[in-house]
Order: sequence, then structure tokens, then C-alpha cells
Amino acid sequence: MKACGLIVEYNPFHNGHVYHVQSAKKITKADCIIAVMSGPFLQRGEPAIIDKFHRTYAALQGGVDIVVELPYAFAVQSSEWFAKGAVLTLHALQVSSICFGSESGEITSFTNSYKQLTANLEAYNHALKLNLNAGLAFPEASKNAYEQIGLAYRNLTQPNNILGFSYVKTIYDYHLPIKPLTIQRSQSDYHDRTITGSIASATSIRETMLKEGAISPSIRNAIPEPTYEQLTAYKQTTSTWHTWEAYFPLLHYRVSTMTAQELASIQGVDEGLEHRIKKTAKQADSFYDWMEKLKTKRYTWTRLQRMFVHILTNTKKQDMEMLHNLAAIPYIRILGFTKQGQKYLRECKKELPTPLIHSMTRHMHPMLEMEERASHAYYSILPAAKKQNMLKQEFQPPIFSNHK
Amino acid sequence: MKACGLIVEYNPFHNGHVYHVQSAKKITKADCIIAVMSGPFLQRGEPAIIDKFHRTYAALQGGVDIVVELPYAFAVQSSEWFAKGAVLTLHALQVSSICFGSESGEITSFTNSYKQLTANLEAYNHALKLNLNAGLAFPEASKNAYEQIGLAYRNLTQPNNILGFSYVKTIYDYHLPIKPLTIQRSQSDYHDRTITGSIASATSIRETMLKEGAISPSIRNAIPEPTYEQLTAYKQTTSTWHTWEAYFPLLHYRVSTMTAQELASIQGVDEGLEHRIKKTAKQADSFYDWMEKLKTKRYTWTRLQRMFVHILTNTKKQDMEMLHNLAAIPYIRILGFTKQGQKYLRECKKELPTPLIHSMTRHMHPMLEMEERASHAYYSILPAAKKQNMLKQEFQPPIFSNHK
Repeated sequence: MKACGLIVEYNPFHNGHVYHVQSAKKITKADCIIAVMSGPFLQRGEPAIIDKFHRTYAALQGGVDIVVELPYAFAVQSSEWFAKGAVLTLHALQVSSICFGSESGEITSFTNSYKQLTANLEAYNHALKLNLNAGLAFPEASKNAYEQIGLAYRNLTQPNNILGFSYVKTIYDYHLPIKPLTIQRSQSDYHDRTITGSIASATSIRETMLKEGAISPSIRNAIPEPTYEQLTAYKQTTSTWHTWEAYFPLLHYRVSTMTAQELASIQGVDEGLEHRIKKTAKQADSFYDWMEKLKTKRYTWTRLQRMFVHILTNTKKQDMEMLHNLAAIPYIRILGFTKQGQKYLRECKKELPTPLIHSMTRHMHPMLEMEERASHAYYSILPAAKKQNMLKQEFQPPIFSNHK
Repeated sequence: MKACGLIVEYNPFHNGHVYHVQSAKKITKADCIIAVMSGPFLQRGEPAIIDKFHRTYAALQGGVDIVVELPYAFAVQSSEWFAKGAVLTLHALQVSSICFGSESGEITSFTNSYKQLTANLEAYNHALKLNLNAGLAFPEASKNAYEQIGLAYRNLTQPNNILGFSYVKTIYDYHLPIKPLTIQRSQSDYHDRTITGSIASATSIRETMLKEGAISPSIRNAIPEPTYEQLTAYKQTTSTWHTWEAYFPLLHYRVSTMTAQELASIQGVDEGLEHRIKKTAKQADSFYDWMEKLKTKRYTWTRLQRMFVHILTNTKKQDMEMLHNLAAIPYIRILGFTKQGQKYLRECKKELPTPLIHSMTRHMHPMLEMEERASHAYYSILPAAKKQNMLKQEFQPPIFSNHK
């Protein structure tokens, strides 16, 4: 059996994602689509609007055959680490291709960028360093560096293209037997905030949902029915969708009972930022307000959000350092599969170099303890009894979706 | 001017406290009554039902001339440390007597106990150690030890008598020029849970208030009018009175995002208790439920509650150790005074060996940073804007009550 890998967040799973799955199947003729998905917290440093289990269910109903979790240590990270974790996970699951969405839909623009970059790596690194030293945030510093050494940066100005480039880079850097593929995004701009028609960005869907506090017909038009069911079921069970604002009281409590020294030990709290966090905490009366007070030219919104996720989950620099020295992906957490996915797993299981785990197993690996802490933090905005109930899902077998 | 010191929690200030203040004035003929009061968290490991500022105001209206704060490092402690902090603070304020309530109202029963104990200290310590090693909790181990060496323990079975004894012991151990005095408690048993008449225990008042969600006529009959006003005003401003249950979500979040190792660094988390805390956290769906699951013969309710306060406020063993090596009380935080109290402070200020501080001063002393963290944790159950508003009180001048 042949598998194609997708790298996803599904926040939430929408019609654009259905198109992505179908296109990947079509162009690769894969027997099995494997999605590696972020868990409770996402790459841009945000809580997922509903939990990973409900997102998994929607994805399996929407055409994905296997959903595995991208470990927290890689999920809430810059594009390079995110890509490394995701690509190596898919490699461990023996996919023969990885298919991602992009604006152009042309893989050569990514592979050429990679070749250009590796051929000019020293010049790039030098230019990057100068830009960073001049006080620029990484994305801008990197953009300038590309331009200064005469590389075609235009393909890397969209967040999804940056990620795509990082996937290609990981595949090539590690010499993996994986074919990178890209399909053109059928939806409008990533940053588009309005919903028109049946294809809309996840951002616009979330913002509309949260603004309206419900799933209006226009949203329903942009998501498959199972997503509608999962979003609705989640809110019925927990009375909430997850947003940063809901975490503000916990985050503020946490920061105000930490010493500056403790704050400085948290992943992402660099360059004396701990004092700025403490200082701004005294005036902030919402998450957004805090972010506004905290951000500067140097600290991008995404970087600060990721840092706040690490504060919330108590993730230390030390934890991350340890994990970054990993020789290989230590385990793969299966969140769910279809009958077809099950067949694939059975077929290749014996040859897999990495242990598959079907539920949270305590004391197995420090990276998994991180997952557990993240999951606890994620559900901490729920009332106690509901929190305990939701956490139980971590110890149950993967979701089996037998819808075909 | 002559001052008499009281050691109090005023949770809340009630008619029994008015009687205490009046009796102390009468028997000592003091010009000034100084109360050293616990701040946000109390000796038995509980949040105060309303904040220290509102309790201060009620006390000043009820006859107390100066209210100072017992630092967190002493307030949330066993009777010995609690007494040490309180008595040394009052000594620094040059009181000539300390007056406390007791069941008997006879100071000789305390002074005799002290003499007997010091004469038999070695035998007591030996017996205490054997009882502790046999697995008894401290109060019971201590009680047995007293009995085994033939001391009159009967006076020390009531919580207030244990504290009274500790005050006397501190005065004598440090050879302080302070006369210990006691008045008979006019109210019914400390543990009494019902309100009958105008004198009721703070416990019964709190429990009735919380059960009824309001201040019924029977409660109102047991508290002075200013206490009624402060309790009402507090609830109007914050929509809440503080109870452990309100802190359960924060506490549970905190524990579930800490590693066992981090938990073990917290004050009061001893003897591998961190694993028991982590384990029971997985089933607890309320604070009471958690305590029930956690407690054993060895760990008393009070000890566990104090430990939970330290977890909530992030107070480390290391923080406490540093403070326990203090040569003297490093500062005295004035919470409020009357005209008479102001006169006293003016008169003796120049001679005072300890700096008086009138509001939170940052970076002054690690013990004060502990106070700030405790205050943040205390107000963390309030909505963000209210929390910020309440915290501002820490940076305002003391309360001046000019009611006479």
C-alpha cells in the first residue's frame, strides 16, 4: 500500500481541506492519506478551537485515513522545527509523498528556492545575522536576507509557503525518500476574513463562529457536515469554543505568581522579555490588550503567542533543548483511523522503526509528559468535572471511523 | 503612650472581637491597640473570606487603633512560626503587653505549661520524635508526648490555646519585655457551627454566610455594623466571597501543569507527597473532594490546606528557608490606623528598629515579593479588570479611619 502524508491543523476541518485530501489522493494515487495534526495548541501559538479528538473525527469523516498527533515539542514552534517534526513523523510512517497547499501550486518554485538557498547558504546566514542584529524580527530579517542575496523570495511571503518551503527543506536536508508535491490553494487569501461561497479560510470560519457565537448558514456552507456536528457537539458538551481570551485568567494568574527568574526559564522568554511580561501584566485586562502592550517591532505577534502557550503549559527551555537533541522521533501517537487506515497500519506495522502508541502512556517519554501537560492546560478553562471527562479521552483507544 | 498587641485574623471581625479589643483596653489601660493580622491567606491554610483591606477597615471601626500585616511567610505556618512572626512584629512596635483569648482566661495555665515544658524539654522532644516516627500527625504526636511526660495538656487541646501557648513561649524564649495576658473567650466553642445570640464564632458566621449566600439577620446580630458594610461592599464590588472552592480551577490547573519535581520544591510538599497530589488530582472534581482523597492519618487537613496555599502562591521551600534565617523582622506593613494609632506611630517612630512601610514597595525585600505573589493569587479568582483594581490597593497609602 502507498501512503501520502499531509501536514495539518484542521482548525477546523473545512471544504478547502476536503479538496486538499481529494487532490492529494488523485495526484499521488495513494491508498492511504495520513495527516499529522497539531494537538491542543497550534503553530501560530493559539489554542485549537475544539479539541484534537473532535478535529480527528471530522478529518476521518472527510477523507483522511489516519490522523496522528504532531508532538507539542514540534507543534508550537517556528516553521523549521514544526516542519522537521511533521516530516520525520510522516517518514516514520513510510509515506512516499507529502502534499501541501501553496499559492502557486508549483513545486519547482520550492525546490528551486531550496537549491538556491543551499548554494548561497553562507551569504544568506551572514545577511540574516546582520538583519537580526539590526533589531528586525525573524520573518522580516529572513525576507531581507533572501532579497539581499538575490533569491526569489516572493514565494515565501505567505505563511503557508514558508511552511511548504520548510517541508521541502527537511526532506532534502535529511535525504528522505519522499516526493514533495504541492497543490494550488483553491481558497482565497490565507488572511481573508470573510466567507464567500463554499471555500473559506479556517481563520475566517473561526472568526465568524466566534463573533456570531454560533454556526450560521454561511459557515455551514464552507464546512463538511461532520465538522458542523463536531463543532456543535463540542460546544454542547463543554459550553465553549477555545480562544486565547478564555485562557487569560489562568495565564495572568500564572505570570503574576512567577518570579522573573522562573519566567526566564520558559521556552521563548528571551532577551530579558520576562521583565516586560511582568510589567505589562500589571495593566493588561484582556489577552489582546496584553499582546498589544507587549509587542514591539522585534517581537512578532506569533512569537509572543507561542511564548504565552509555553508559559501556560509550563514548558521550559530545558525541556525543549533535551528534545531537540533527539536522534529520531521517539513515538507516534495515533489519534484515529478508518478501516483503510487500519489496513495500512497492519501492513507496515512490523517494519516501522518507531513505536506507535494508541493512548497516553505515562512515564514513557518526557515528550509525552509535555503532551499531557499541554492537554491539562488546554482543558483547564472547563469546569472541573468536564475537564476530567475530556482528559479521559487521552487514555482511550484511537477513534475508529467506519463510515465507508 | 502604652500599647497592647493583639494577634488576629478577623475572618470576619465579629462581636467576640469587639469584646476582645474592649477587654484588652480595660485590663491593660493601653492608649493604643495594635492588631497584627494575617493577609490574604490564613493560618489554617484558607483564603480570607474578604480581603485584608476590607477587614482592616472593619477592625479600625471596631476599636483597633493600628492594623499591621503579618507577612505571608509567618501567616501561613504552623503555630510556632505564626507566633514568632506575630510576637516579634508586635515587639518591634513596642507593645508592652499581648492579650489573647483562651478557654480558661487564666494566664498561669500557659506560663506554667511553658515552665514545665522547658524543664522537661529533652524528655518531651524524645517522646515527640517517637510519636512522629510511629506515624502520628504533629498535633496528636505532641499531645501524646505531653501526656507521656506527665504535663497538663488539657489547656492545649483547643486551637486557640495552642496559639496562646506559642505566643507565651515566643515572649519567654526571646526574653521580650512584653506581658502576656489572656481573657476568657466569651463565645461558645471555637468549632461551634451555629449562631445563637450576639456572640458567634467566625467559623459559624462564615459557614452561615456562604450557605445562605447572604448576610441574614442572625449573622448581622453577631457582627458590628461596619463588618456588615464591608462584607456587603466586598461582594457588591467583586461578586464573590473567597472560598477554597473558588480557587479549585486555578489550583488544579497549576498542579496538572507542574512536574512532580517542581511540586516537591514547594513548601509543605514533603515525604513524596507530590506523587499523591498528582495521583489524586486525576480524580478530584472539587477542592473538598481532592482534600478527602488526599488526607491520611499522617497529613492533617490544616497541613494539607497550607500546602495547597503554597502551591497556589508558588511558595518554595527555598523561599521559606531564606526567611527563616532572618535575624529580625525586616519591615512592618501598616494596613491602617485611627487618629489615636497615628499619634502612637508618630510618637515612637523615631525609635523603631524596623522600617514601617505604608504600601507595597517593589524590590525591597524577598518577603515582600512573597506578599505580592500571595495578593495576586488571592485576587486571581476575580474577572481581570476587577483583579487589577483590587491589586491597586496594595500601592495606596494605609487606610485612615477617622471615626471618633
